[in-house]
Formats: sequence, C-alpha cells, structure tokens
Amino acid sequence: MNAPDPLARESFASLLARAREPFPASRKQYLAGALHADLRVPVRDIALTNGEQVSVYDTSGPYTDPQAVMDVRKGLASVRGGWIAARGDTEHYEGRAPVALDDGQKSEDATRLAQLRAEAAALQRQPRRAKSGANVTQMHYARKGIITPEMEYVAIRENGKREWMEQYQQDAAREQRLAGNPLGAMIPKIITPEFVRDEVARGRAIIPANINHPEVEPMAIGRNFLVKINANIGNSAVTSSIEEEVEKLVWAIRWGADNVMDLSTGKNIHTTRDWIVRNSPVPIGTVPIYQALEKVGGIAEDLTWAIFRDTLVEQAEQGVDYFTIHAGVRLAYIHLTAARRTGIVSRGGSIMAKWCMAHHRESFLYEHFEDICDIVKAYDVAFSLGDGLRPGCASDANDEAQFAELHTLGELTQVAWKHDVQTIIEGPGHVPMHMIQANMTEQLKTCHEAPFYTLGPLTIDIAPGYDHIASAIGAAMIGWMGTAMLCYVTPKEHLGLPDRDDVKQGIIAYKIAAHAADVAKGHPGARARDDALSQARFDFRWQDQFNLGLDPETAQEYHDETLPKDASKVAHFCSMCGPKFCSMKITQEVREFAAQKGVSEAAALAQGLQTKAAEFQKGGGAMYIPLQSIP
Amino acid sequence: MNAPDPLARESFASLLARAREPFPASRKQYLAGALHADLRVPVRDIALTNGEQVSVYDTSGPYTDPQAVMDVRKGLASVRGGWIAARGDTEHYEGRAPVALDDGQKSEDATRLAQLRAEAAALQRQPRRAKSGANVTQMHYARKGIITPEMEYVAIRENGKREWMEQYQQDAAREQRLAGNPLGAMIPKIITPEFVRDEVARGRAIIPANINHPEVEPMAIGRNFLVKINANIGNSAVTSSIEEEVEKLVWAIRWGADNVMDLSTGKNIHTTRDWIVRNSPVPIGTVPIYQALEKVGGIAEDLTWAIFRDTLVEQAEQGVDYFTIHAGVRLAYIHLTAARRTGIVSRGGSIMAKWCMAHHRESFLYEHFEDICDIVKAYDVAFSLGDGLRPGCASDANDEAQFAELHTLGELTQVAWKHDVQTIIEGPGHVPMHMIQANMTEQLKTCHEAPFYTLGPLTIDIAPGYDHIASAIGAAMIGWMGTAMLCYVTPKEHLGLPDRDDVKQGIIAYKIAAHAADVAKGHPGARARDDALSQARFDFRWQDQFNLGLDPETAQEYHDETLPKDASKVAHFCSMCGPKFCSMKITQEVREFAAQKGVSEAAALAQGLQTKAAEFQKGGGAMYIPLQSIP
Repeated sequence: MNAPDPLARESFASLLARAREPFPASRKQYLAGALHADLRVPVRDIALTNGEQVSVYDTSGPYTDPQAVMDVRKGLASVRGGWIAARGDTEHYEGRAPVALDDGQKSEDATRLAQLRAEAAALQRQPRRAKSGANVTQMHYARKGIITPEMEYVAIRENGKREWMEQYQQDAAREQRLAGNPLGAMIPKIITPEFVRDEVARGRAIIPANINHPEVEPMAIGRNFLVKINANIGNSAVTSSIEEEVEKLVWAIRWGADNVMDLSTGKNIHTTRDWIVRNSPVPIGTVPIYQALEKVGGIAEDLTWAIFRDTLVEQAEQGVDYFTIHAGVRLAYIHLTAARRTGIVSRGGSIMAKWCMAHHRESFLYEHFEDICDIVKAYDVAFSLGDGLRPGCASDANDEAQFAELHTLGELTQVAWKHDVQTIIEGPGHVPMHMIQANMTEQLKTCHEAPFYTLGPLTIDIAPGYDHIASAIGAAMIGWMGTAMLCYVTPKEHLGLPDRDDVKQGIIAYKIAAHAADVAKGHPGARARDDALSQARFDFRWQDQFNLGLDPETAQEYHDETLPKDASKVAHFCSMCGPKFCSMKITQEVREFAAQKGVSEAAALAQGLQTKAAEFQKGGGAMYIPLQSIP
Repeated sequence: MNAPDPLARESFASLLARAREPFPASRKQYLAGALHADLRVPVRDIALTNGEQVSVYDTSGPYTDPQAVMDVRKGLASVRGGWIAARGDTEHYEGRAPVALDDGQKSEDATRLAQLRAEAAALQRQPRRAKSGANVTQMHYARKGIITPEMEYVAIRENGKREWMEQYQQDAAREQRLAGNPLGAMIPKIITPEFVRDEVARGRAIIPANINHPEVEPMAIGRNFLVKINANIGNSAVTSSIEEEVEKLVWAIRWGADNVMDLSTGKNIHTTRDWIVRNSPVPIGTVPIYQALEKVGGIAEDLTWAIFRDTLVEQAEQGVDYFTIHAGVRLAYIHLTAARRTGIVSRGGSIMAKWCMAHHRESFLYEHFEDICDIVKAYDVAFSLGDGLRPGCASDANDEAQFAELHTLGELTQVAWKHDVQTIIEGPGHVPMHMIQANMTEQLKTCHEAPFYTLGPLTIDIAPGYDHIASAIGAAMIGWMGTAMLCYVTPKEHLGLPDRDDVKQGIIAYKIAAHAADVAKGHPGARARDDALSQARFDFRWQDQFNLGLDPETAQEYHDETLPKDASKVAHFCSMCGPKFCSMKITQEVREFAAQKGVSEAAALAQGLQTKAAEFQKGGGAMYIPLQSIP
C-alpha cells in the first residue's frame, strides 16, 4: 500500500467490477431450504470439460452473481430481514444519536467528513434491538429448541451438493485407507438443521449474525463444521481510505474469507464501518476498544466504562457480528508478562494492561462483563474473547500469563453462556510445532469446547516477509486438532500494512491450511475436490485442473509461462518433461497393460519371472524386445 | 522461464555478480578444525546494531566471500583435494572417453556443442577412483573408526558458533518450557567428530562427497543433525540454457539450499553437469536414468544395463555426489499402481515400469544392484533410493504399491551397507496430514534408520500455484518426525518450470519448514536465532529484524512500502499501529512498571485491589489518574 492514489475512487470501481466476474467456468447456484422454503444458500458450481459439475462452498456473496444488481453506495439486499422480523421479538428504534467523536479525534476536515457521513447515512438501516426482556441470540433460540432459518441455512451450506462426490468415493478400500483422524471432532456424514441447533445450544458452534446485519449469509464456526478462516482489513493511522477498505472486503471474500474483521484504528472509523457492514455478506468482527481509544485521543488511561459501553451500543446498532473483548487481561496477570521476551503484543491486551496499571484497578471489561452480556444479547453480537496475553514470539509460548488468561476466558465463557451469548475463544499467536497440541488440549478443557479461533500460530520467528507460510504450518496443525476458525496472517505481518495482493496471499495460505485440516479430520465433504483435481491432472484436463484449484488465474498464468499455447491446455504432456516423455502418459500405458493382461495375470507375471527369463533367452537373448512384439 | 533471452550470457554475469554480494551486515567467517588444522568451515556472522554478533549456517559457498577470486569458467577451488590425496587409496586415471551421445540425441548444432564442450573441458578435472580393491566411502572409513576431515568439518559446521546464544538461553524455566520433543531423535548438545563418525558408520547419516567433487563443502544428512533442504534445478526438453542452470545453482545456495539435484533432461546434459559440478560447493545429486534415457532417444524400453552402467561411471567421474536409483520399482509391484487415481508419477519410476512391462522382466536396477554398489563405492557416490511408486495425489497415499517399494528400499539399504555405500531413502510426495506419521514410522522400521528424504509431502491437491505452501506444511511435520532432508517444491509444481523467483520461493518455504522442524525437535542450536530476531523486534531494531530473517531484502522492502523513511527503521513504533500507539511500546512501560514496583509487589497489587480502589475513591474519584502521578 503506497501513497494514496488520486484516482482511488475510479480504480476502486474498476477493481470492484473485476472482482464481480465469476470464477472461470463457474456459476453461482442457490440451494433451497426444506424447513424454511425461502432460503437461497449459495454454492459455486464448476463445469468441467468432461461434463462433470463440481460444487464448492462459496463465500463471495452476491458479488459473483451476474444476476445481482448491486450498488455499493446502497449496500447489499437483505437476506435475513424477514426471518428477524418474523420472530417478533425485536423492534426498530431511534438508535443512539451519532456524535462527531464516533469518527475519532483526528478525522478528515469537516467538509470531507460531512460528505462521507452523508454517503454512509444513505446506507444506514434503522437499528433493531430485542424487545424489553427478550434475548435474540441464536444460542437462545437453540436452547429453546428452535431451529432458526439461520441454522437450516448453515446446515445446507455445510453440506453443499454431494451427488457429484459419489464417483470419487466408491472404492471402499481406498476410503478406509484415507479415513480421517478427527482427534475428537464428531462430524456427521450429513449436517442436519437439528445438528446445527444442538451444536449452537451446547456452545460448540456459533452463527455470528447480528440482527442489524440482515445482509449476512449465515455461516457457522465450530469444530464439527468446515474449518473457517478470517481476514483482517482496516485502515490505520498511517494510510488507507474508505474506498480501499470496502474493495478489500470484496476482494477478501472472493478468495475465500469466511469472516472479516474490521480493525480500523485511524480516521473516519465509524463511517468506514458503515460502508463495510452494509456491503458485507460475511460476518464482520471488530475490536471495540480500538474505536473507544480513538475517542479518547489514543490515551489508554483515559478510557472509561461509559465510553466503552457507548461504543458497544454504537457498533451493535451498525450490525457488527462479533466483538473481540479482552476481558481476560486481568490486573493480576500483567506482571506475569514482565519477564517475557516480547511482553504483550496484542494491541487490545496492551491497552487494557496500560489502563489497569494506570488505575491500579481490575479491568473494567472484566468487572462489567455481565453488563456487556446484557448489551450484546439484545442484538446477538457474539463474543470473541480476546487473547490479550498471547505470546508474541516462540520464546513466550505457553507461558503462565497465556494460560492464566485462557483460564479466565473459560470462566467468562460460562458467564456468557448463562446469558445465551454465543462465544468463541481467541488463541495464539506464536507457538512452535511441538507446543501446539497443548494449546488445543488446554483450550478444550478450560473453555468447555467453545470454538477456538487462533491467529496462526507462527511456528518460527525468523521468516519476516513469509509469515503467512510460517503460520500456515501451525494453522493447519491446530485446525486438525480442533480449532474452528483460523485468523490469517499475510506476508506483511510484523512489517507493514497488507495491500491487495498480500490479502490474497494470506487468504490462499489459510484456505490451504483450513482444507488440509478438513482432510485430516476426515470431513466427509472435503476430499472429493482434491480427487476431482487429481483426476483432471492425470487426464491432462489442464483447464479443469486450473479451475478446480483455489486460484485458477495464477495456476493458468504459471502454465502459460512455460507452455503458452492453447493447444498445450489439452496436450497429453506437461511442461515438466516436455512432449517426448511423460510419466503420467506412461502410467496410462501401465494401466492399459494391466487391463489387457488382467491384474491377476500381471501379478502372476512376477512369479513367472523365471519362465519369462527363459523365454527371453530362448527368444535369442536380444537385450530388448520392441513393445509391439509383446503378445 | 520465458523464451531464451539473447542477452542471457550478459544478464547471467550480472545476476551472478549480484548473487555474490554478501547478505546485509553479514561477513563470512571460517572456523578451524582441531583434529584437522586445515579445515575452513564457513559460517555467516550477522552484526547487529546493538553490537551483538549472530552466527548462522552458511550454504552459499565462496560466492559470498569477497576475498574469494572466482571465475565460473574455471570452477571453484578445491576444498577436499588434499584430504582425498592424503588418504592414499585413490588414483588418477584416464577416465571414460566422452562420446557425442553423452549430450543426448538432440543436442545443439555441432559448432555450438563443440564450443560448449571446449568450455567444459577447461573445467574438467582428471578423474580419480579407488585403487583396486579399495573402498573410499565415508561410511567405510567411519566403520574402520577413522574420523575423516569431512566428518570433523561436518561436526564444526553443525555446531557453528554457540557463544552468542548463551544470553538467550539463561532462563532455565523458559528453556524447560520450550524443551523440544525429539520424537526419537537423539541430538547431542554438541556434535563431536566422533558422533559424526558413529552416525555415518551406523548408516543414520551420510556425507555426500564424491572424491571427484573436491570443491564440495562437506555437510551431513541425518536425523540427528540440522534438517537439510534440497533444491532441484535442471534444463528440460522445452526450455533452458546452461548459463541459466549454473546461475540457478548459485541463486539456490544463496538462499539456503543444502543440496542441489541436477534433473536435466534436455540438450547438452553432460556438458551442463560439468558446469554445475565444477561450480558447486554443495553436493550435487542426479537421476542417472534420465541421462541414460536421452542416450536412447527417449525410448524407455531401449534402455540397457550396459548403457546405464556406462552412465553411472560417466557421472561418477564428473563428481556427482549422490544418485537417485529407482531400484525398488520391481515388476511385481507395477500392477499395484493400476487402480490408482494418478498411477506412477515419478519420472524415474515410470521409466522403469515401462521397461519392466516391455520386457516382462525384473528391473535391471534391482538385478544389478550389487554391481551398482561396486561402481559407486569406488567414488563414494551415495545412494538416494528413489521412490518410483510414490503417490501422485492424496488419494493414492500410503497404498500397497508405495509401501511394497519402501520395503524393497529397506532390503536394498542392507545390500548397500554391506558394501559400505552411504544411503538415503526417498519418500513422498502427496500425503494428507493425518497419514504422515505412518510414513515416517514405516520408513524407520523398514529402512533401518537410513535417513529419509521426502518431497514435501503435499497435504492437499487443490492448490496449484501454491504447492510450496501446501507441501511446506507436510514437510515441517515430517521433518519434526525424523526426516533428514526435505526436497523443495516450488510454486510452479505441476504447472511449469520454476524460474529464478520460483526457486527462491520454494527454498524459503522449505527453510521455514526445516527450521520449524529443528525447533520442534529441540535442536540445541536452532531457537536462538528466533530469540535474537524477536528481541530485535521488541527493541524496535528494525534493521536487525530484517537482517536476522531468512530474506532480509524482502523484509526491508515490505517495511519500506509502508514506512519508507530511514528514520522509521529506528522508530519506536511500527507500521501497524502508527506513531501514536504501539502495543510493544506499552509493553515496555509494563516492564518498567513491574521493575519499578517489583514483580512481587505487582502481584500483591492484584490482591490489594480493594485497598487501591479505596485509595482511588479517596483520591477524589477522578475517573483516571495521569500515569506520571503514580508513585
């Protein structure tokens, strides 16, 4: 991300137009509900050149639907509005009156800000909240035995289409050999709406879906569902513009971000969020303390519960789906970080530590946790209990401070659940491979199976510029072990602000980690896409190989570099060995050979070597026999 | 790799000049031997801005030594020539007479070829071989109890300098918390020359070092040493030039390739190899069957033992340090691949399968394995027993064909060891995470702890364009489990030929995997560099952070994109949060606070909350107290 581009608005429009193009050979389809007939659950169907259709999970929202009429200045159409209204337990209300400080103390000049706010006002929906005494969380409904449209939506989405997979799963011996190792996960063959309800009720999954974010396409975060990934976007004090942020959102979900966190800390923080939420089909998370800090001019010790509380309401009304709350950073734990190599590296964690120190007081987040529950349950904002004391380097991994906080997060989980507030737990960070399992084990035990949501973890510290890779290793492993959502790390981690390409690189690395975890766990719908791609590779269906991959454009581009001709895309050889010799081609001959001879005869061949050798000698002892002379 | 550049020679020279520049703030140093005084073992010392010196393993050879006078048209200076001569068990000899076919059937036009060959002839050293009846392998010496200069060199190199690490290892509780999980490895605190000898003697490590490659800087491949990585280079039938290949070698070792395999299959294959070997300070491996195939015009069934045997001698004389021999692809196993999704994907494996099928015969590699041992032990060429039946997709992982071959490789290991031939075992390939451990367990059991050398493995199949990441996950895990060397995968895997940047991307991904494995195993010299970098990060020593990383240039470039000013490189804030607020800065305040109050008092603080709260009220109940007023 370099200096602001004067043409930013135009280039944003053009980038957005490009990001609306469907993936190659892909068509968005919608699946209907059974319990709730009006569900339209998106999948992406990829048409292969051999006539097959492969259907995959689709996070990109209406942006990739050519039928959808869209205008980012109006925001997305409502998906859930009817369901929310039909429940009859919410009401529209005036909402909190916006104040200038909502955009921080260092916003744009007044004219520009007024313009931005006018644009945002055009987007804003009137806020809803629970009627007095009502609790409108998905967990609350689940515990009352209600299967909401959101739950059925999630069930359909998690299953996707499965018919096309059958041809890849017919070999029982192979399926047995490849059977996953779920390490405690219990993923059913088919996810039913009732299963979703049960997982949400017991707190093992959440559906982040603020009633003020009706545009969201419901999704679940839980150990017994597909592993999800989160991408962070957000402006900062140093650079960024609002247009950039919304475009980054669309870009992030195009490549597969299941959730997006808006970590803005700079100018126009409220207005930026309006734009993002109104244009987002995926749940949006925030760290409200960031905005609260902007309101007090960046002075942590000036934070108050009143300001924070007001910020929660403000963001809940905007439609934020989950809040990171660093309520586990207790005064008693702060000294535990003093001997660390890199101390407290969580921004929210260090804000709260500074506050606690300055005031010699317990954290107001901890002390007011039940008050926070009361606020969020009126909107169904989920908690992401922040790991403010996560390790900032391998050397600080799994230390006393980290686990002390985790224990408190477990305690707070039970408080949240008392209020039926959906809750996930944030985790590290920086952890060498051999210390990862302890994190998962401790989290499962301490936090009562509330979903774990980890940042990486990075397995080593010496790879600045490549931390998406150093952390994808840890992310894949902890995903296998049971983490429900992986927060991405981009190549710019520790160095700078991610630009568009960094966001994509981070997402692809994390889609790899999440998929590797799904395959290892034995998710019944995970491996067929690998099979379809491998089959295409073996059949020299190059275009299908590209299109089945996570990034068709890059795959095709790489192939073009060596073999640019269109003919190469159907050629029965590849760029590695050239046209003369190809191992895959030879394998096809092996197969023909085995088929021709019959496998049993091929096996017999081996035993009959002596005979054959004798024949060989009898045949004149020529050192080699032309292939065509073999009977 | 695009169309050949007419300026290739010039740009090669210029690229090479750039690749000779030392890394930032780095100086090559040489460590001397104790048993063998003439050893000069390279390390790279990185000078930090705070006066510290961090010393790291250095694979780049004399190229990064500004004192070294170098001319790629003359080749590198000899490192081992004196040691080899001093052993008195080898002799110079005429060597095999080169023939035109050595460069394949499709070489350059005669004039150009003659010119290339003349250039190669200027490089060629007169070959040596063992005197009649002698065995000149490092394993042979080791078993006789001899500690060769190569072994002491390896011991010194594996230890490196350790003094600088002490300051990072003084906290006993931290060291205990971070203690690795070696999973069966037994890495001593300090590697002695005797330990190296013992590991080589028992076959648990090899030192690939052909007596005709005196330019090599000895290194070890073994489970109880640092995990190594291999980079593949090589021309192909489709593209490439000799100059490109040598430059790729220098580029690969600059970024940390411990070994390089020359997988050339195209034109000028013999001559290319002369250039590579004479200019390589790292061991060079080949797959001799590739060249043999070129000699018979690419027709696998035309291969003969005589042609193959002659090729082995040819390459052994050139100085190739290890041969991949696919002797485990037995006739009896071929039919086991017929039902696979992607059959046989190893090029060598499919060549041999085709030969076996065509002739109804057992593989000549298997039948002549003892003859091959007799050849290689006269030069100390090590075996890399090829996994010709490795899985080509996750769906084929851990199948009967793969493990049948592995069993044969174990049997051949014992044959090789009977001849004191150093041996490593190649492994997959494509294996989902949950099936990786079985590979390592089976290999250790079946192959008697001979070092394992795996390609990845790739954990999923849907990431064409990003297979360096999909495989780095598997590589890190199997490295932790005990694999001694990881063969890199580049982003172009399955799609095209890697160019310069792809080679670098592949190497960095694999340096990450190897280092993550070393850290997890608890290698006593591994983690200090992470600590030094993390400390630099915490201290805002940006330049040190870049310079301690695997790729200082990229790290600095990424930082420059957001904060280009030189002042930012010493600024006490980072690009993520801007100058106003920084979590690391706050942490420093936490530390000062804890130091000021004493940790015990800080702990007491927590218990004394009530008192403090009372004081707070007594102090006027102001909602916040300025930091400076805290006593």
